[in-house]
Amino acid sequence: MTKVAIVGYGNLGRGVERALAVNSDMELVGVFTRRAPETVATEGALVFAMADLIQQKDKIDVCILCGGSATDLPQQTPELTRDFNTVDSFDTHAKIPEHFAKVDQVAMENKTVSVISTGWDPGLFSLNRLYAESILPTGTTYTFWGKGVSQGHSDALRRIGGVADATQYTIPNQEVIDKLKAGAQLELTTRDKHFRECFVVLEEGADPEVIKNEIVTMPNYFADYDTKVHFISQEELNRDHKAMPHGGTVLHAGETAPGVHQVIDYTLKLDSNPEFTASVLVAYARACARLANEKQCGAYTVLDIPPKYLSAKTVEQLRVELL
Amino acid sequence: MTKVAIVGYGNLGRGVERALAVNSDMELVGVFTRRAPETVATEGALVFAMADLIQQKDKIDVCILCGGSATDLPQQTPELTRDFNTVDSFDTHAKIPEHFAKVDQVAMENKTVSVISTGWDPGLFSLNRLYAESILPTGTTYTFWGKGVSQGHSDALRRIGGVADATQYTIPNQEVIDKLKAGAQLELTTRDKHFRECFVVLEEGADPEVIKNEIVTMPNYFADYDTKVHFISQEELNRDHKAMPHGGTVLHAGETAPGVHQVIDYTLKLDSNPEFTASVLVAYARACARLANEKQCGAYTVLDIPPKYLSAKTVEQLRVELL
Repeated sequence: MTKVAIVGYGNLGRGVERALAVNSDMELVGVFTRRAPETVATEGALVFAMADLIQQKDKIDVCILCGGSATDLPQQTPELTRDFNTVDSFDTHAKIPEHFAKVDQVAMENKTVSVISTGWDPGLFSLNRLYAESILPTGTTYTFWGKGVSQGHSDALRRIGGVADATQYTIPNQEVIDKLKAGAQLELTTRDKHFRECFVVLEEGADPEVIKNEIVTMPNYFADYDTKVHFISQEELNRDHKAMPHGGTVLHAGETAPGVHQVIDYTLKLDSNPEFTASVLVAYARACARLANEKQCGAYTVLDIPPKYLSAKTVEQLRVELL
Repeated sequence: MTKVAIVGYGNLGRGVERALAVNSDMELVGVFTRRAPETVATEGALVFAMADLIQQKDKIDVCILCGGSATDLPQQTPELTRDFNTVDSFDTHAKIPEHFAKVDQVAMENKTVSVISTGWDPGLFSLNRLYAESILPTGTTYTFWGKGVSQGHSDALRRIGGVADATQYTIPNQEVIDKLKAGAQLELTTRDKHFRECFVVLEEGADPEVIKNEIVTMPNYFADYDTKVHFISQEELNRDHKAMPHGGTVLHAGETAPGVHQVIDYTLKLDSNPEFTASVLVAYARACARLANEKQCGAYTVLDIPPKYLSAKTVEQLRVELL
């Protein structure tokens, strides 16, 4: 049995609790939180204060870190990797090399294992980019996200004065995807690839025209996209737009001879982004525990780990069942 | 530079020659054939007799074995792994464990590396089954093949008395795939998943009704499927049905909570099955050479190999570009 601690308990931590329940070789030691433990309602897991984590060190094989990439993980992953094997879903793409270097140093010094930046992007999408471009090196890889809720863009909407609440959907351009799947070679702008759709609840007295204009011209977030804005009631937002679906496609299109098109398409359709990400974290927690058992210390990403390490089955069983 | 020998030169060997040309870190030593070398027309590669292979041992890092799974590879892979690092696409699913054991023993005894059963099924499809079922262990994996030409079924048609030539397409049931992608849980029979479509050229005087009946009732090959039969001229068959497209889908559908559907879809659309398979062989030849450099002797499948070993790029570059 691999004994797991969940560090941080938001949507992701709850997803990890659920995922552990369907992996019979994994055992949940408990949830560790910075909040007052008695205020955290889990689905059955014991809840402890963060300060208790180090005292339970001998009971824990892997800590799954469920904090955010902005402020939690850049600190927590290096810090906890001093004493524990860790898995995180650090997803600030540009800062991954720096995060890797920091965590790798701690892991090497303390003879622990850390698997960073798991999840689906970075994570499964990165894997598919790697396999595809290694097999068809002259091809082109395209990534599309959605249809799904972008937390970052929803947050940007909520920061606008006069906006009470909001949900933003990223929507891939299916027409473009279909053309690429048919083997077309396209030069695509940001505007060609995705649309943005916003469901916004106004504060009383706010002017919809002013706010709509502020949204569609917002640099980085909306100005480069075709953006639709809908004003709805809080009731409607709560009823229809509080789920967290997401997904996307990594499409690689290449030719092995002139006119001989080869298309590799990896697509995720997720009803719950945090629960799926949590399921990926749990599979890599298994790999992390195995690497630690083998004393293969250091930091890893999904690109480094032999696929068989993710499975609860023996490699003999995998050869019979999957090849 | 990784120096590669191609052993056997049919459609697959030619595909490997083309794939090597777009991988600038790989160098082709030559094609080795059991035929008279002067009768083999390559796209530029030198051609040698099989007997010359052992004499060029020092010039070769990896042999890519391009023979068939029925009779060539069960003999050739163990035999050549005595002296060379090897990669094959052995695809007789039921016999892979036996093939693995035999090749592994030879590789361990002779301190070589062999990567067996690469390609896309077994191969990339096996990888995707593994990742998907490890992440969503309570889900179900479905594999669909096509639309594409099945050599085995085309051969079965050509063995019927009165058939001069034939091509068989395996066609997945798109309606069923769409339902699964939408999260449906379905119990599927063989007949539900695929159709078969046959383009047949008759010998003079053959009775189409008799032959059609023989086809659609043929056990194992057609009896369990809805099969369409078209009788056409040799000219039409040559013009429209001599390409080798293929592809397929590995679909994994699971729930992370009741009613919360998560769907992982890996789909290949290949204009040329042998050229794509060849591209996979070449990427695993790179991995094979690296494992050999590290003296990690033995037999491997795609399930064992860290993804980064397939790429010509450094792992630092991969972390920056793909994560």
